[in-house]
Amino acid sequence: MSPRVTILSGGVGGAKLALGFYEVLEPKARLTVIANTGDDISLFGLCICPDTDILLYTLAGLVNLETGWGLAGDTFHAIRSAGRLGATGWFNLGDRDLGTHLFRTELLAQGVSLTEITRRLAAALGLGCAVLPMCDSPMPTRVVTDEGDLHLQEYLVRRRAEPVVKALRCEGASGARPGPALAQAIAESALIVLAPSNPLISIGPILAVPGLRELLRLSPALKVAVSPIVGGQSLKGPSDRMLAQLGHEVSPLGVARLYRDVLDAYVIDIEDGADRPAIEALGLRCAVLPTVMRDLAAKRALARGLLMLLDGFGPGDPR
Amino acid sequence: MSPRVTILSGGVGGAKLALGFYEVLEPKARLTVIANTGDDISLFGLCICPDTDILLYTLAGLVNLETGWGLAGDTFHAIRSAGRLGATGWFNLGDRDLGTHLFRTELLAQGVSLTEITRRLAAALGLGCAVLPMCDSPMPTRVVTDEGDLHLQEYLVRRRAEPVVKALRCEGASGARPGPALAQAIAESALIVLAPSNPLISIGPILAVPGLRELLRLSPALKVAVSPIVGGQSLKGPSDRMLAQLGHEVSPLGVARLYRDVLDAYVIDIEDGADRPAIEALGLRCAVLPTVMRDLAAKRALARGLLMLLDGFGPGDPR
Repeated sequence: MSPRVTILSGGVGGAKLALGFYEVLEPKARLTVIANTGDDISLFGLCICPDTDILLYTLAGLVNLETGWGLAGDTFHAIRSAGRLGATGWFNLGDRDLGTHLFRTELLAQGVSLTEITRRLAAALGLGCAVLPMCDSPMPTRVVTDEGDLHLQEYLVRRRAEPVVKALRCEGASGARPGPALAQAIAESALIVLAPSNPLISIGPILAVPGLRELLRLSPALKVAVSPIVGGQSLKGPSDRMLAQLGHEVSPLGVARLYRDVLDAYVIDIEDGADRPAIEALGLRCAVLPTVMRDLAAKRALARGLLMLLDGFGPGDPR
Repeated sequence: MSPRVTILSGGVGGAKLALGFYEVLEPKARLTVIANTGDDISLFGLCICPDTDILLYTLAGLVNLETGWGLAGDTFHAIRSAGRLGATGWFNLGDRDLGTHLFRTELLAQGVSLTEITRRLAAALGLGCAVLPMCDSPMPTRVVTDEGDLHLQEYLVRRRAEPVVKALRCEGASGARPGPALAQAIAESALIVLAPSNPLISIGPILAVPGLRELLRLSPALKVAVSPIVGGQSLKGPSDRMLAQLGHEVSPLGVARLYRDVLDAYVIDIEDGADRPAIEALGLRCAVLPTVMRDLAAKRALARGLLMLLDGFGPGDPR
């Protein structure tokens, strides 16, 4: 039986590594994926959880591989009809994908928790692993920019990450708590991985759930992050631009500094091997692996590489 | 220029006559359609107005003629996906039709009134006439049955009108008011028509909006109803069954009694010509016309027949 693994993840980038673990862990129930819900948005009265759904669809093999989000082969009749009438047109939602949002919104109105709804979605999609929202209460990430205070999706999708970011704010954080299933997964895992997702708007909001950093520190697991910055750039999305605008170094080291209080180890890409001493100077073990997941084989290989760290840097191993 | 006409209408049956007027009035702006909103329902967090949408789609020539509701050629990917996940499956919604509900729900959340939203929908669909909800606040019809207290759509759609009806209740009526556009249309029309819709759950809820019966009585218009009962049966839907279960006579006369305080005249089908003396005994003028609208020509003919009553029974004409 594989060791128990928990991965903290945003959308497209993190989902690749989550899929890698989903492929190599036996049984698949050894995997828990904690999804960022800071990017959740209410549109048309519907509760939409983009990162959660990307994870669910990716793990179920249903995701649209061209876009990285939504369902393969979906149509867009509803959203286009709404748009022709004059409704919000900047957030694209497929018809079959809408089914997920209809289901989720109906259950939320009945008082069912987001954790339980996500469990039912995962079960309906036939997933063998657990997917957990970072918390059950809304905790939207607000982006303070030179164009004003925007919802994360307004910044990312409507404004294509063009405004200059001055600050990030996790609304509703004071009322948020990690759920019991999440606390248990963190406590019982041998390996906890911070996926190579955006450190500011994907992993950052998860770590901002009150009590979650403490749960990580208390866990006996090996805690390791994979750098989302390779060769001075983010592989996907505006991580690099946002890091720079908020005064962080755009490098594996810049990201490692954001996580160092909860990490034992850090993985950088072979392209950034020269940064290893600087990472180790932070007090972190550092591994150098191929982290760019171009295909399924590369996703599996990175997951296996991270599992191998359990032997080298294993739990209980002194830093 | 045609006389100004206002029609009070439910869904499929009333929409046929509304279309007849829409076809014969010049300009089309002389027509105002007041839609029953007692059958509105909130599902999946979306505000759905079935009668209003049937009227909009029918007048715009977009309705699915086979079902009488929804959009011709629509697909059902979203609702089927939601159903596969375990969401409410008994209320069918097409994907393009969902666009209407997304648009409406978004605007309601922004504080836009249902009257203004319906105006924008009519404009977007290119309609030349006004379609007005009977009121802006929610006023759902509850059906008290031997299986409990059901939302009208639960009774009609989920339970296929099978439970025995013991009473009807207009929830939220005390807070409802006819809007100014509706009051103006009633005051300025030469002809006001109660469509051959279900008298209990389509026309009844409109007449139950506080102040609306009084507005009708004060209007100088000729007020005429078309019997929804022909040959002892409702042409469509459970009107006959519901009338009987609630102790009303299942006949043109039985329906006329429900409306008599607001009517000047009543139209019965040629098949029911023998009922004329009984209708006149209620103090109503009675016309006998072909009222079964099997095709567009029949819809136009009934609208023209009703307009001709203005000459015979015209406004100001003593009862």
